[in-house]
Amino acid sequence: MTKQEYTIIENYMLTHITDSAHDKHHIYRVLNAAVDIASYEQCVDMDILVAACLLHDIGRSAQMVNPAVCHAKVGGQMAFDFLTAHNLLSQKWHPRQARHVQDCISTHRYRGDNPPQTTEAKILFDADKLEASGTIGIARTLIFSGYVDGPLYTLNEGGSIITGTADADTATFFQHYNHKLKNVYSSFFTARAKEIAQKRKIAAENFYNALYAEVTDNIESGTELTEVIT
Amino acid sequence: MTKQEYTIIENYMLTHITDSAHDKHHIYRVLNAAVDIASYEQCVDMDILVAACLLHDIGRSAQMVNPAVCHAKVGGQMAFDFLTAHNLLSQKWHPRQARHVQDCISTHRYRGDNPPQTTEAKILFDADKLEASGTIGIARTLIFSGYVDGPLYTLNEGGSIITGTADADTATFFQHYNHKLKNVYSSFFTARAKEIAQKRKIAAENFYNALYAEVTDNIESGTELTEVIT
Repeated sequence: MTKQEYTIIENYMLTHITDSAHDKHHIYRVLNAAVDIASYEQCVDMDILVAACLLHDIGRSAQMVNPAVCHAKVGGQMAFDFLTAHNLLSQKWHPRQARHVQDCISTHRYRGDNPPQTTEAKILFDADKLEASGTIGIARTLIFSGYVDGPLYTLNEGGSIITGTADADTATFFQHYNHKLKNVYSSFFTARAKEIAQKRKIAAENFYNALYAEVTDNIESGTELTEVIT
Repeated sequence: MTKQEYTIIENYMLTHITDSAHDKHHIYRVLNAAVDIASYEQCVDMDILVAACLLHDIGRSAQMVNPAVCHAKVGGQMAFDFLTAHNLLSQKWHPRQARHVQDCISTHRYRGDNPPQTTEAKILFDADKLEASGTIGIARTLIFSGYVDGPLYTLNEGGSIITGTADADTATFFQHYNHKLKNVYSSFFTARAKEIAQKRKIAAENFYNALYAEVTDNIESGTELTEVIT
């Protein structure tokens, strides 16, 4: 890919940034991780991969407006339209290549029932899932909680933190950790991504356990309030 | 304090909640910590302390609308007005007691040049500062970053994370950690708060160091991009 092509795709991406959990730094980290993973794989089409990484979240603003929209599906179509419209950039971006980028983007979603098929799609999936691993996964989840004004936790009637995974739609950090973050380590397709994630895993677990202990200790110390409020 | 008085003050607090870093759970944690700290101190007026804890952030919405407003100062005045207006609740809330609550709230701010004077004011200050310690401090800072749509970090021209503390107004997590969170451990007035904070400290440091390493490793792996973009 030429520098000029990269810049045009990058600039299009920059006009579709939403929240700070999915900002340009998230996109660049996914791209960096994808380049790393690709260096351990055979026969990777790097132009397809770079374009797919840069454009993988351009459908997020549409999903933000209407949560029924799947950003992966919409973003894939937007990427196809953009790349074919810019066919002038290079002979490379014929509909077949643009469709390949579209497929990578359409299948990158963790919760999707549409798993990635090609090497490039698997690398994008893994590079994006690394963003849910380790402390970076913790940090981005908390930032997103703040963005949608979701609570750190809710308490049950007994005053304990609800950590259950049953209701995945309840947007508390503790539920999201138990529903998604702690399970991401078994979701990778490539050995390199799995290796990076495993290296990050213990720091995320330590954070969760420490946070749980801090809040639980605090709640416990508040039981003495019953002696004050009569 | 009677249960009825507590409920009236609590309900007033609940109508002044802003973001999820300063939600009702933050207020209850400050209250829980204050009760804990108070049990190690002599001659604490628990009614003053409970009212001050419940009402300490009611000025936040005014500060959110106009950042030039100090939520501690405005909140203190609001608390005074509220408590004196509800003098009917109890003979306790005469102007002198309401002024004591006001003073606690006015002096609870970390960055303020107005340090707490009374035992109750020092306990509120410490209980609120505990919310900036440990993983709870990390979590709340990240949630607030998301709420104000601030980035996790910014990069300098060389592509490295800016961690400098010089510009405290730049609302990135890395700068906020270095400017505020890592220094909170020396800010306590009471031995009990210092003890709780020290117990939490290592988990916060481990999180910061792990996050810094994850992002730095990722940025480094992206340098191979120069071989792809020609």
